[in-house]
Amino acid sequence: MITTDICIIGAGPVGLFAVFEAGLLKMRCHLIDYLPQVGGQLSEIYPQKPIYDIPGYPEVKAQELVDNLMDQIKPFKPTFTLGERVDHLAKQEDGSFIITTNDKTQVHAQVIVIAGGLGVFEPRKPALENLEAFEGKGVTYMVKNPETFRDKNVVLAGGGDSALDWTIYLAKIAKRVTLVHRNETFRGAPDSAAKVFDLASNGKIDLILSANLKEISGNGKLETVTLETKNKEELNLEADYLIPLFGLSPKLGPIADWGLNIDKSAIEVDTRDYSTGVDRIYAIGDINTYPGKLKLILCGFHEAAIMMHSAFKYVYPDQKLSFKYTTVNGVNAF
Amino acid sequence: MITTDICIIGAGPVGLFAVFEAGLLKMRCHLIDYLPQVGGQLSEIYPQKPIYDIPGYPEVKAQELVDNLMDQIKPFKPTFTLGERVDHLAKQEDGSFIITTNDKTQVHAQVIVIAGGLGVFEPRKPALENLEAFEGKGVTYMVKNPETFRDKNVVLAGGGDSALDWTIYLAKIAKRVTLVHRNETFRGAPDSAAKVFDLASNGKIDLILSANLKEISGNGKLETVTLETKNKEELNLEADYLIPLFGLSPKLGPIADWGLNIDKSAIEVDTRDYSTGVDRIYAIGDINTYPGKLKLILCGFHEAAIMMHSAFKYVYPDQKLSFKYTTVNGVNAF
Repeated sequence: MITTDICIIGAGPVGLFAVFEAGLLKMRCHLIDYLPQVGGQLSEIYPQKPIYDIPGYPEVKAQELVDNLMDQIKPFKPTFTLGERVDHLAKQEDGSFIITTNDKTQVHAQVIVIAGGLGVFEPRKPALENLEAFEGKGVTYMVKNPETFRDKNVVLAGGGDSALDWTIYLAKIAKRVTLVHRNETFRGAPDSAAKVFDLASNGKIDLILSANLKEISGNGKLETVTLETKNKEELNLEADYLIPLFGLSPKLGPIADWGLNIDKSAIEVDTRDYSTGVDRIYAIGDINTYPGKLKLILCGFHEAAIMMHSAFKYVYPDQKLSFKYTTVNGVNAF
Repeated sequence: MITTDICIIGAGPVGLFAVFEAGLLKMRCHLIDYLPQVGGQLSEIYPQKPIYDIPGYPEVKAQELVDNLMDQIKPFKPTFTLGERVDHLAKQEDGSFIITTNDKTQVHAQVIVIAGGLGVFEPRKPALENLEAFEGKGVTYMVKNPETFRDKNVVLAGGGDSALDWTIYLAKIAKRVTLVHRNETFRGAPDSAAKVFDLASNGKIDLILSANLKEISGNGKLETVTLETKNKEELNLEADYLIPLFGLSPKLGPIADWGLNIDKSAIEVDTRDYSTGVDRIYAIGDINTYPGKLKLILCGFHEAAIMMHSAFKYVYPDQKLSFKYTTVNGVNAF
């Protein structure tokens, strides 16, 4: 069991900055994110895209902002559980919570902060009849640990950056990589696409274009992926793993069942401290809503600061909050 | 008469960033600040001090943050009136305002945003009997344009960074610079103090320590500054200018008389849009107050974003606000 003051659900920019504001009040944080890395959408969807509306940055690449936030919160030693989804919340008698993830990781915290952005990004799944029966038995939507695929037969499907990047990466460690794409061209970065075409023409991978996933089969675990080619022919591929990378689609996830007030997939909060209707649970960033709400990262930063000052009373019930400015002694004084 | 959509009173970090948020909604801004340069306290009081709590900046020097904000708002071409104090506000029949400064500059605006920080920084004045009679006639509390002092006899008084820095600077252009300080040591930066002692020992300036201002006199304009030395002797200095630099003390200033709800020198606002009780007047940053308020620059950034979305209806009463993210096309699309 991980024990912390504040459990932050969502390690996007707002969740990360919340660690800083908590740290200034001597509260420690553990963050949980369904994505395998920190940074939320910024790192997952547009790491190289410039952002123009972070105050003080005329232009900053999304991943650079995430990296800077990670540097900024380093003094406060946050801990992370990545690639896992929060599934269950159990209120304890003393008011604290125990959170359990889909991988059975447990976190005990005094306060929960939901900084879940647009929600859990659920993978878009291919329409295959018995798909769910093979999830965790060969079918996976995310490369959490590339070593899993060492010396295995891996079939990837998709035409975006994730499909291209993982094809290039896994080509080095898998026994055989096959990339299946329904079109002749890729949506991903042109230089990544060029690399993939190179790997294919050098015989390092198999590239099957204008083809669709049709069927999967196996005895207790995945063994065969069947494709339909452009000529309507069937093609059977020997496969230990199938990784469909068709993008992510945001869902609120199990949080929707926690008794919070939900309005159009967003959590209603009190603007005085961004608390939800449920005691000790706060919501900040794109996942919350209130009159006049703007879904801007800079607004989430403000919400994080205000919210942590409110949460202080749960972590230190016997202390009076004394607010110190960082400019006087820097962060090492905290 | 200067005509603008939004007149922002205060060109500190929050006032500056408000220009960006206005610009995204195609609203133009004019900023007025009593200080002779933009940046507010950051540029005036601690330009070289590192700040640690700007999201995404593990550390940034105050002046660097101001410079970056100026870069960021450049595409929106803000205009400035600096070194002048807002003195008068006249509501027009159509709901707009005409603002008049102490130097009679007039600005016509649809909306007023007070981003005045801790208020107007009024200079701390020496206790001299006929001081006010010589203000503007030789006595000044601020170096707005150094050229004013070329080839003049200038007496500076004070022991902080401003006194040291201006002594060093004006030594190059004034006929004669005398620095008067009541102590033997300086509060300002040690290397600036060392420079001043050097200038004095090389005969480039006159340095009179352990002395106080006692009297000023002249016929219609300043001619003589009389000091009292540590031996209680009087010393008369020929002077075209006296610049007492005893620091700044924050005051709300004439804004206090505009019918706003003031609580302990701060303006009460509605957190839904940071509007004051007076139609079309908003207050953002350290000058406002509301339940849970934190005087943090990052909170002012948020308030600026929310407030500009609310002000849109006054500038474009016939248009529906359509919010575009900058990530799609960058700021040049606005």
